[in-house]
Amino acid sequence: MSEYTLHCFGESGNAYKVALMLELTGCDWQAVPVDFFNGQTRDEDWRSQVNQQGEVPVLEHRGKTLTQSALILEYLVEQTGKFGWQSDDERREIWRWMLFDNHKFTSYYATLRFLYGLKKTGETEVTTFFRDRAKAAYRVVDQHLSTTPYMVGGRLTIADLSLAGYVYMPEDTGMQLSDFPHIEEWKQRIKAMPGFKLPYELMPRASNL
Amino acid sequence: MSEYTLHCFGESGNAYKVALMLELTGCDWQAVPVDFFNGQTRDEDWRSQVNQQGEVPVLEHRGKTLTQSALILEYLVEQTGKFGWQSDDERREIWRWMLFDNHKFTSYYATLRFLYGLKKTGETEVTTFFRDRAKAAYRVVDQHLSTTPYMVGGRLTIADLSLAGYVYMPEDTGMQLSDFPHIEEWKQRIKAMPGFKLPYELMPRASNL
Repeated sequence: MSEYTLHCFGESGNAYKVALMLELTGCDWQAVPVDFFNGQTRDEDWRSQVNQQGEVPVLEHRGKTLTQSALILEYLVEQTGKFGWQSDDERREIWRWMLFDNHKFTSYYATLRFLYGLKKTGETEVTTFFRDRAKAAYRVVDQHLSTTPYMVGGRLTIADLSLAGYVYMPEDTGMQLSDFPHIEEWKQRIKAMPGFKLPYELMPRASNL
Repeated sequence: MSEYTLHCFGESGNAYKVALMLELTGCDWQAVPVDFFNGQTRDEDWRSQVNQQGEVPVLEHRGKTLTQSALILEYLVEQTGKFGWQSDDERREIWRWMLFDNHKFTSYYATLRFLYGLKKTGETEVTTFFRDRAKAAYRVVDQHLSTTPYMVGGRLTIADLSLAGYVYMPEDTGMQLSDFPHIEEWKQRIKAMPGFKLPYELMPRASNL
């Protein structure tokens, strides 16, 4: 029995945020695969027993059940003492970017990638809409990363790990990544961290279940 | 000069979350109108001087500039001592719902309302997509509110104020609100709080500037 148990599946970048944090901090953890594509997160029993919000990631640790990637990342900072803040102002700055990530950067990009890259809907009004919004969010982050190697404090924090959720996913989204050169360099920087692994190396893929 | 300055506009439910918190806690605050519909939040000067993320709300208080509604709500709990948590577990439960709100409940509903209710695009593939997702998020909250009068701890907290951002907006979204009876009752409960005001009573409308 590992210390941490993560309900997840490989295609979920929101789960990857947590899996990568657990891995980079050297935690003892195990994955519990979630059969997303057959509707497990919509199942009433799963919702009442695991997460009423119907989402992964869900982290179990010492009798606690935690959900929402940003909140889990904050919890893991408190547990491991790594990739966190050095002051209240820095903590707020980290949360500010994690919220922007949840609301826009991950949200728009992940939906685009789900439709265009996984469901293969082809180009529709919906994919065009999400791509435009994803690009606008990418521009905000790219501009910020033109002035600093990492999002907050000049070093890797959970703000970076939150934003990194979907950026290593291999599926095509029709986005031109070379339009965001500072994001590309930041991705290489994170990839060079000791212990780094890609999403499908860290978690079992639901599409293979 | 008021103690708090809020950059906002009436149509923004994300700004309303903060305006309502300021009002219900009796803070001394003033609104700085943002000319959203003429692109002020996309303006490079505005972004460099007010918020690089290009969003309202932005709250100024004693030399600090704060953005992201959930983070501002947490800050205002610390300043006012009201509508907050009584334990670490409760704080996490509040954040869990504020994140669900940012990611899904507000995000999908606000985009639907912007397109269908304000821009008047009519029914499109995009509005149908967002309405389906908004309904799924509403169902999660409605189900939770069938078991408790408020989201966390049986009393009004910032989790409620975050989720309440867009629910009082008068524009039609094509959603059948009677499908969510527990949300409708919860809206009445919040509306009965001393000091409650509707969005357009609290903030100047950008469409009138």
